[in-house]
Amino acid sequence: MFNEKLKQAWNKNQSLLCLGLDPDLTKIPKHLLNEKNPIFEFNKIIIENTFENVCCYKPQIAYYSGQGAEDQLIQTIQFIKKHCPNIPIILDSKRGDIGPTAEMYAKESFQHYQADAVTVNPYMGTDTISAFTDYKEKGVIILCKTSNPGSMDFQNLEHDGKKLFEWVAIKASSEWNQYQNVQLVVGATYPKELKKIRHLVDQMPLLIPGIGAQGGDLKEVLVNGLDKNKSGVMINVSRSIIYSDSGTLFFSKVKQEALNLKNQINDIRNSL
Amino acid sequence: MFNEKLKQAWNKNQSLLCLGLDPDLTKIPKHLLNEKNPIFEFNKIIIENTFENVCCYKPQIAYYSGQGAEDQLIQTIQFIKKHCPNIPIILDSKRGDIGPTAEMYAKESFQHYQADAVTVNPYMGTDTISAFTDYKEKGVIILCKTSNPGSMDFQNLEHDGKKLFEWVAIKASSEWNQYQNVQLVVGATYPKELKKIRHLVDQMPLLIPGIGAQGGDLKEVLVNGLDKNKSGVMINVSRSIIYSDSGTLFFSKVKQEALNLKNQINDIRNSL
Repeated sequence: MFNEKLKQAWNKNQSLLCLGLDPDLTKIPKHLLNEKNPIFEFNKIIIENTFENVCCYKPQIAYYSGQGAEDQLIQTIQFIKKHCPNIPIILDSKRGDIGPTAEMYAKESFQHYQADAVTVNPYMGTDTISAFTDYKEKGVIILCKTSNPGSMDFQNLEHDGKKLFEWVAIKASSEWNQYQNVQLVVGATYPKELKKIRHLVDQMPLLIPGIGAQGGDLKEVLVNGLDKNKSGVMINVSRSIIYSDSGTLFFSKVKQEALNLKNQINDIRNSL
Repeated sequence: MFNEKLKQAWNKNQSLLCLGLDPDLTKIPKHLLNEKNPIFEFNKIIIENTFENVCCYKPQIAYYSGQGAEDQLIQTIQFIKKHCPNIPIILDSKRGDIGPTAEMYAKESFQHYQADAVTVNPYMGTDTISAFTDYKEKGVIILCKTSNPGSMDFQNLEHDGKKLFEWVAIKASSEWNQYQNVQLVVGATYPKELKKIRHLVDQMPLLIPGIGAQGGDLKEVLVNGLDKNKSGVMINVSRSIIYSDSGTLFFSKVKQEALNLKNQINDIRNSL
């Protein structure tokens, strides 16, 4: 199951780094644009140069569907499954809908794309989650407290002594996690909230975006987000690694940046 | 712009009916499965037999992406634009994400699929909405109070005298609607909440699912949801019309069911 696969990747690669595969045709190295499938070729090179230093890959589906490149997302996922089958794949799509539509989205995530986990938006409530969690072997990563400024608008509204994101964390851990296949998204930019959530959900894995371009502090994230085993988090970085160089030899910079961040995370982790 | 196009369709067809195009290969008439593009052929026949009795079409993207049929969604939208260009098209995808990713989703909705409007999830807040509303000519239909039982879980949490869905309605109408291109989703199954929302947002168009299979009462919806002009709503129905018959002549039943519902809505509307 997903949590187990993730744990094995954490241990084998000694890495808490989740690499986002968000290929934008206006940003990838120019020489790749001559390729038949430039998005896939870009991802393939990234994967070949990072698979020993990450705990998971997270393709963001908008970069594929927005550019009519769903087929290259399938190619990418198939390549990961062949090249580094031990690395779990999170489809970041933030889906959320009811009944038969939620079932179709679960089918999209787990059958059509064959991802190991999917991100899901909780706004519509319990009956929109079960179509995903019914796939017991798969991970269902619920948005809890997101990294962006707008997360203050509704996620921090307080009801009965607890904020909305806390109610989501409580429901996710107490009601939705019967198959131990639920995880949460918590932004690196809100370390106090991260601390509260870690307290509420015990050992549940957390996907943490917001380091890098968004300005989250890595040490704060680790101090507040690690579980009792000094593990339990997937620290997501995308742009600052995959676009770290735009030349024909970009892969060597990408490889170095991923290794550097993995080491930086581990140095802090070991110092705590 | 979207509101204007919608208003013209309301008036021209004298209809408040929004027809959902949710084609499931396990449910469409069997004889269509021999076609090269069965989903498109099914939609095409539905459209040909309903375009004079609806105010908009709403393809639910999960039914296309879940079945690897994105190309047939494009075919469907192109067919509507050719066959009945006055009917607005709502891409029901409930997207929601930050910064560059939200921009990619807006590109997916408005450039790649060329929809007139898209549904959006508000959980992540203001900065996840603007990438959509920046397309001033397009409609951005925000989830407010959804029709499913799980909408009670978070949408009804009360903060400072108002429930979450009310805070969403207030933000949508007071902050996000500067280009007059925001609308809301409100479930037919919660008429009291619908009344509150109509009061909060004045003349803003409301997309109302939950009639039919989900059990919402049509009269309650109209009494509580219509605007001052006895208009202002898109009453969404999908399954109970598009799957009303499974034979080779299913189109005649579909045509009749759409006309019946349009007339039923107008009869109640005229009696108020």
